[in-house]
Amino acid sequence: MAHDCSFLADLDLDGEASFGDSARENHATDFGAEERGRGVTPDAVVWPESTADVSAVLAAANDRRVPVTPYAAGTGLEGNAVPAHRGISLDLSRMDAVLEVRPDDFQVDVEPGILGAAVDEAVASDGLFFPPLPSSGDISTIGGMIANDASGMKTVKYGEVSDWVLAVEAVLADGSVITAGSRAAKTSSGYNLKDVLVGSEGTLGVVTRATLELAGRPEQIRGARALFPTLDDAAAAVFDAVRSGVDVAKIELMDATSARMANAYTGTDLPDVPAVYLEFHANHGVEREIEFCRGVFCDHDVERFDVADEDEMDDLWRARKEMAYALQLWDPDLSPLHPGDVTVPISAYPEMVSYVKELADERDLVVACFGHAGDGNLHYTVLVDEDDEEQVEAGTEMYEAAVEKAIDLGGTATGEHGIGLGKRKFLETEHGAESVEAMRRLKRAFDPRDTLNPGKMFPETTEGGRVRLDVPGDDTPPGADDAS
Amino acid sequence: MAHDCSFLADLDLDGEASFGDSARENHATDFGAEERGRGVTPDAVVWPESTADVSAVLAAANDRRVPVTPYAAGTGLEGNAVPAHRGISLDLSRMDAVLEVRPDDFQVDVEPGILGAAVDEAVASDGLFFPPLPSSGDISTIGGMIANDASGMKTVKYGEVSDWVLAVEAVLADGSVITAGSRAAKTSSGYNLKDVLVGSEGTLGVVTRATLELAGRPEQIRGARALFPTLDDAAAAVFDAVRSGVDVAKIELMDATSARMANAYTGTDLPDVPAVYLEFHANHGVEREIEFCRGVFCDHDVERFDVADEDEMDDLWRARKEMAYALQLWDPDLSPLHPGDVTVPISAYPEMVSYVKELADERDLVVACFGHAGDGNLHYTVLVDEDDEEQVEAGTEMYEAAVEKAIDLGGTATGEHGIGLGKRKFLETEHGAESVEAMRRLKRAFDPRDTLNPGKMFPETTEGGRVRLDVPGDDTPPGADDAS
Repeated sequence: MAHDCSFLADLDLDGEASFGDSARENHATDFGAEERGRGVTPDAVVWPESTADVSAVLAAANDRRVPVTPYAAGTGLEGNAVPAHRGISLDLSRMDAVLEVRPDDFQVDVEPGILGAAVDEAVASDGLFFPPLPSSGDISTIGGMIANDASGMKTVKYGEVSDWVLAVEAVLADGSVITAGSRAAKTSSGYNLKDVLVGSEGTLGVVTRATLELAGRPEQIRGARALFPTLDDAAAAVFDAVRSGVDVAKIELMDATSARMANAYTGTDLPDVPAVYLEFHANHGVEREIEFCRGVFCDHDVERFDVADEDEMDDLWRARKEMAYALQLWDPDLSPLHPGDVTVPISAYPEMVSYVKELADERDLVVACFGHAGDGNLHYTVLVDEDDEEQVEAGTEMYEAAVEKAIDLGGTATGEHGIGLGKRKFLETEHGAESVEAMRRLKRAFDPRDTLNPGKMFPETTEGGRVRLDVPGDDTPPGADDAS
Repeated sequence: MAHDCSFLADLDLDGEASFGDSARENHATDFGAEERGRGVTPDAVVWPESTADVSAVLAAANDRRVPVTPYAAGTGLEGNAVPAHRGISLDLSRMDAVLEVRPDDFQVDVEPGILGAAVDEAVASDGLFFPPLPSSGDISTIGGMIANDASGMKTVKYGEVSDWVLAVEAVLADGSVITAGSRAAKTSSGYNLKDVLVGSEGTLGVVTRATLELAGRPEQIRGARALFPTLDDAAAAVFDAVRSGVDVAKIELMDATSARMANAYTGTDLPDVPAVYLEFHANHGVEREIEFCRGVFCDHDVERFDVADEDEMDDLWRARKEMAYALQLWDPDLSPLHPGDVTVPISAYPEMVSYVKELADERDLVVACFGHAGDGNLHYTVLVDEDDEEQVEAGTEMYEAAVEKAIDLGGTATGEHGIGLGKRKFLETEHGAESVEAMRRLKRAFDPRDTLNPGKMFPETTEGGRVRLDVPGDDTPPGADDAS
């Protein structure tokens, strides 16, 4: 259902609004949705340039029951920022300023549209960096990372985005502006609204400013590469390293298929055997940590363990970062299905990896496996010929079986990509009906009219129509389905 | 207003209920409220022994609009667990089991009534420990720590309780049981209900089970003591150490007054000059870190810097842990006022410390200052003769001025004790009216009848009566004031 967004012309915005087809089409997709046709085209796009803009747009849209879907770089993989119900795409990319660097406090205040790489650049001269950047950090925004509680290769040592966001300013659905969190290193004051907002995928509020915590750049950075006879050996070695307390800053698993795809796309020369890639950070004694890790890996039949300095590793990390592209361009006849993002307790990691490989082998499917192994994270992507219905069905079945296995093992359907549109069906499997109802209570409390990013996260919206929030005293019917 | 709790006798509980005076009186106070007469006596006490018990009590109480205040060890300092509106004190202390240790995952599942020290004992043989234990960890429970998002001496290196709670089971006000969080090291699945519950002081739900993350015990632990000519020098040295990236596991400030009080109570022999006490944790190279720190401190006129091993430091840490008792027993004519718990960005720490000292000197008040300096935390306690109205007024004025200063400096009214009854008046000063209203939305969403721990956190309840939640469609009036 199209929504009348003509009221935007009457708002006195610092930024800009557009009703043009090109702008609207550009906001109808993300990196994951592109090939799968999920999401719909918004009726209008707004580029706010201030908190006041965001507040004005939201207050007016909320009054009129027009959906507003926050958007930034469009690098999401689950349709998180793609409208499900038309309305307004609120593109935060022009709010991309570094507002204040406070090196003495290891803090920086930024606007949400800033790219991750730009944050690191802004604080590099102070010897600082933002540790939880995802692999997409060069092209994705801080606002998007906050919305998904993203994480990345260095999370195994440093933690996820929520651990490094100290405070936010956010606009709620009704246009009210709140602050949450504190610039102090810790606080027990009031409810933790900061972590209500982080990871809420733009369904509870729009973050317009964030105070990020930073880390000092370590004096020693070394990379290493370990090759294994089988992927099972590699997964077992990772588990043993984590259990043994190896202090590692990156510990990435990559199977032979992924290596071949990476080489084809990036022009690298990674060995096409199961591998673990590592990075160690320390201010002193980094060699001891590397040798400790080598010792652990030797108990798991490691075939080679090569140490490299940071420069030598650049190619590798670039290849790793570009895996999403490599998957898409591997074979013109094969399209990547939904990307797996399961994460399990580390002791279950070998079983998880082995199960995915079995599923693939049984079905004779092309599956690439890689992931942030130290966190128990596994990305697995099934490539299928989309014209081959049987293969698509087998791939989908395998994809879902792996998510269910992860949940059975005490893990999660998504370690870092969020629920978006793509993983709604697993929300209740993972959390249970009572917990999902508690999440709905939260949504109703913050956004009773389902204005913000409607259709995301909650499974019932797969049946069409905006979430039925059943707000007492608010009997206006929710918008109709708008698949058209 | 007394509430009819006779329905408790009809519930088929695994645990026990009591209406006896002694049980009720024992639940009318906490460590901080004792001398200040805050809080009221509950009408009944229940000791649940299972999640089903907690659910049954809450469902029945919620139906009848009887307040339920979760309680455990009574070690809170802000009246957090002391009833403000009678009703039921729900004492979780019998739910104190270790349910499962999973050393391979660095995880343990516990019930909320377990003491912090008992968790450390249960996992010690696996070489693990729970890092964020507060100084009261020997006598306070995990449930209480979760309710307050507590933290302690090792937080400067390891983080606060919320960082080490992976998942919880909780009972909501209506008796429904939810789970929140994940055993996976990270998750982006759904709203972060775990951190909605952590730090909510029992006002949103009752945690009945928690999965805690654990750390490996470091191979090297060393202590050190640094003495300074002035407290300002000590605070400046701490700031410089943190800014320089010294990797320290404890960095505690203690003024001369606190040292004298500690010595008198604990029988220790701490030098009565401004001091910084440190502990360093590492698997190798701990001496290098200590020497790095010594170098930084030398730039701040440190008078002595003595290294000690873990055993030698035991006396000191015991003295530090018992400061709360030492304050109460220092002088029979002087009573401690409200305990200060301000926390500021580390760059503002020297100014914060200096300001508190000035306030005390101007008013000629006895004030003890100590705190988790590396986090920017300062505990300051004013001791006054309670019969001297002018002194009480001056002390209270000083206490409040310091909190307001901390907030002005970008800090928080409470780094670790929570809001409870004692700090309600600062909630809006710190967060602003819009943010407090957002917190109220959260409270209404989870507990529309204000059953759970009513009267806490929100400032309007100082005027008497339960929180006016104004829930649409729920027009039963809230309970009347019950100061009687």
